[in-house]
Amino acid sequence: MLIVQKYGGTSVGTLERIENVAKRVAKTKDKGNKVVVVVSAMSGETNKLLEYAHHFSKTPQRRELDMLLSSGERVTAALLSIALNEMGYKAVSMTGRQAGIYTDDAHTVARIDKIDTSSIKKALDEDKIVVVAGFQGITKNGEVSTLGRGGSDLTAVAIAGALKADLCEIYTDVDGVYTTDPRIVPEAKKIDVISYEEMLEFASLGAKVLQSRSVELAKKLNVKLVTRSSFNENPGTLITKEEDIMEKPLVSGIALDKNQARITLRGVKDKPGIAASIFKKLADENINVDMIIQNVGHDGTTNLGFTVPENELERAKQIMEKMHPADHLEYDKNIAKVSVIGVGMKSHSGVASKAFETMAKENINIEMISTSEIKISMIIDESKSEQAVRALHKAYELDK
Amino acid sequence: MLIVQKYGGTSVGTLERIENVAKRVAKTKDKGNKVVVVVSAMSGETNKLLEYAHHFSKTPQRRELDMLLSSGERVTAALLSIALNEMGYKAVSMTGRQAGIYTDDAHTVARIDKIDTSSIKKALDEDKIVVVAGFQGITKNGEVSTLGRGGSDLTAVAIAGALKADLCEIYTDVDGVYTTDPRIVPEAKKIDVISYEEMLEFASLGAKVLQSRSVELAKKLNVKLVTRSSFNENPGTLITKEEDIMEKPLVSGIALDKNQARITLRGVKDKPGIAASIFKKLADENINVDMIIQNVGHDGTTNLGFTVPENELERAKQIMEKMHPADHLEYDKNIAKVSVIGVGMKSHSGVASKAFETMAKENINIEMISTSEIKISMIIDESKSEQAVRALHKAYELDK
Repeated sequence: MLIVQKYGGTSVGTLERIENVAKRVAKTKDKGNKVVVVVSAMSGETNKLLEYAHHFSKTPQRRELDMLLSSGERVTAALLSIALNEMGYKAVSMTGRQAGIYTDDAHTVARIDKIDTSSIKKALDEDKIVVVAGFQGITKNGEVSTLGRGGSDLTAVAIAGALKADLCEIYTDVDGVYTTDPRIVPEAKKIDVISYEEMLEFASLGAKVLQSRSVELAKKLNVKLVTRSSFNENPGTLITKEEDIMEKPLVSGIALDKNQARITLRGVKDKPGIAASIFKKLADENINVDMIIQNVGHDGTTNLGFTVPENELERAKQIMEKMHPADHLEYDKNIAKVSVIGVGMKSHSGVASKAFETMAKENINIEMISTSEIKISMIIDESKSEQAVRALHKAYELDK
Repeated sequence: MLIVQKYGGTSVGTLERIENVAKRVAKTKDKGNKVVVVVSAMSGETNKLLEYAHHFSKTPQRRELDMLLSSGERVTAALLSIALNEMGYKAVSMTGRQAGIYTDDAHTVARIDKIDTSSIKKALDEDKIVVVAGFQGITKNGEVSTLGRGGSDLTAVAIAGALKADLCEIYTDVDGVYTTDPRIVPEAKKIDVISYEEMLEFASLGAKVLQSRSVELAKKLNVKLVTRSSFNENPGTLITKEEDIMEKPLVSGIALDKNQARITLRGVKDKPGIAASIFKKLADENINVDMIIQNVGHDGTTNLGFTVPENELERAKQIMEKMHPADHLEYDKNIAKVSVIGVGMKSHSGVASKAFETMAKENINIEMISTSEIKISMIIDESKSEQAVRALHKAYELDK
C-alpha cells in the first residue's frame, strides 16, 4: 500500500514525540508499505514566530510571514528524517518546493494549484521514506507560500490525491471523530466510519478534528482519510465515500456550536431587496451569516432573524446600526446551535420529528430550524444546549 | 554607493537587536545607498538545532543537517525585512536559493560555485533593501546546502563581489582588528586599515574577527571589507588591497596562538623519504602540521621537530607511536606561537632582528622560527607568551 501520514504539532511537539513518530512511521514501512509523511511545526513554534513578527509590526507583509512561518515545518521534517535514518531506514526530507507543491500567490492563505509528484515518486521508487514539510508550497515565481490554518492536513490530502495513495492518515492527539463531545456526554462513542458529507457537517459545526477544507479536498480527490491519535494504537475514524459505507447509521452524531449569536430585526419594511442588501453588506464585510428566518408580522412589516458567529457579532452590530434597516434591532448571544447529523436520514423519515419530540420532552424551545439532506440544526437557548445534546444522543441511541 | 552589510548572530541575537540592526540599515539607505543585508541566525539558534539533530543521531546526514540548519537564517531575514517595512522602507527577504547562490554538493561545507544576481539586482532597481539569509545556497539539483563555519561572511563577500559592491561591512560584537589581544595588552589599538595578506595571517593565527576563507574570497574578488561593531558607531577596520594603503606600517600587529603543541623526534634515521612519509601520514589523517625544523645530530641521525594544533596532538601521538619513526618521541603542549605581522617588512630590513633582540632582552628562548614575506612566527614557552606579546607590542611602538 501507499500510505500518506500526517503528524500535527502536538504529535511532534518534543524530541521524544518525534522519536515516537519515527517508530510509527518505521512500523508502517516494515509492513511493506510505501510511506510519505507530512509534518507540522513543533507545537508552539509557529505561534512563537508569529509573536516575533508582531513584535515588529501589527501587519507584517504576508510574503515575509510565509518566509518566516515556513521554517518550522522544515525543522521537524529534517529531524524526523534524521531519526529515521538513524534507525536504519532511508529517509529524505523535502520542503514544499522540493515536494513539488505549487500554489497561487495568496500568501498566508495560498491554494494548491498543482502537485508535481516526480521527486516524491523518484524517492519512493528508491525505497525511501519521504518526509514532507507541511503547510507550505511555492508560487510560480519561486516565492515561498503557506496554506493557512489546517495547511499541513491539506498538504497530506493533496499529496495522497496526487499519488493516488491507498490511505491518508491524519494523526492528532484525539482518537478520531466522536458521536458528540465526550466532555458533555461521557457515553459518546468513537465513530468507526463516516462519509465525507457527514464529516463536512461535523467540521463546519465546530468539530476540531479536521478542517472543512481538507475534507472537501479529500472528497474531491477521492482520498480515504483516517483521523487517529499518535499517542495510542486505536484505529481512529475512517472518512470515505458514502457508497463505501456498508451499514449507514440513521444518525452519526450530535454537534454543538455555542459560538452563535442572533440578530433580530423587527418591523422591517417589507419592500423587495431589503434582505438582499443587508446580507450583501454583511458578506462584503466577511461576516458569515448562517441561519435566516423571515416572517410577516401582523402589521404588514416583516421580522427578520439570522445568526452570525459570536465573535463577529460586534462588527455585525456596527453595520446594522449604521444601516438601520428596522425600528427594533435585537442581539442575542445566549443561543447555541444543536445539530443532528446522519447520512441515513436521506432515506429515512422520522429523524427530524424525533429531534423535535425530544426537545419538547425536555421542555426546550426551538427558536430556529434549518435542515439539509443529512442534517437538522436547531437554535436553542445556550443554557439548555448541553441538556439538549445529552437528550438527543440518548434518543438516537448513539450510546449503544 | 552599493553596500553589502552582514550582521552576525550576536548582532541579531534578540528582537531588540534586530530592531537596532534595522535602524542601522535604514540609516545606510537614507544616505542614498543601495543596500543588501546578509544575516546570520539569531545567536544560539544554530546550536539549538544542532543539539536537536544530535539527540537523534551522532552522525546525522549532512543533507538533512543543511535542511535543518538553514532555517535559522530565514527567520532572521524575514524578521528584519518585516521590521524595515514597518519603518516605511521597501524590503524583501531572500533565501540562498532566491538570492541565486549556487553551491557544489558538499553538504554542510559547500563552496559557492556561482551567484546569479538577477533577483537581487531587480529588487535593488525597485529601490528595495534586499535581506539575504546567509550561510546557505542551493545545489544544481535544488538541494539546500550550507557553507560551513563563517558561512554568512562568505555569503556577504560573494554577493559583494558578484554585484561589484563598493563596500562589504561585516558587523560583529567587536570594533575591528586590533594590534594584539587587548586582554593581554590593554594599550592595543584598533587598526584602521590592513591588507588582505596581513588579515589572512591574523585570521590563520587565531584572530576570531574573520575567517581566512572570507578574507581569501574578498581578496580574490577584490571586495573592500570593513569589520566593525553593530553596537556602536566606531568606524572599524578596513581590509583592502595593499596598493590602496597609503601609509604602510612596518608592523601591523602581534598575534598569539596558544593552541600549539610540538612533537620532537630524536634519532631519526637520516634516510631519504622518512620525513615525507611522516607528513604524508599526518596529512592523510587531516592533521595540520605547521612549523617544521630538521637538523642533523652529532651521530649522523636527525632530529625532527614540528608543531600541530594542541587539540590534534592526541591523534598525532597515536599515529607517531604506531609508525615509530625514531627512538625518542617527545611531546610538548606548553608552547605558544607568537607572530609579528606587517606588510611593511617586505621592504624594510631589521624587523626580524628587532623581534629576536626583544626576546633576548626578555630572556625568552626562541625554540623555532618561521618567516614569510609579511610575518615572523616564533615558538616559545607558553608561560612566557603573554610577556613576549607585551614586549613586542611595545618594541614596535604599536601602542603609539
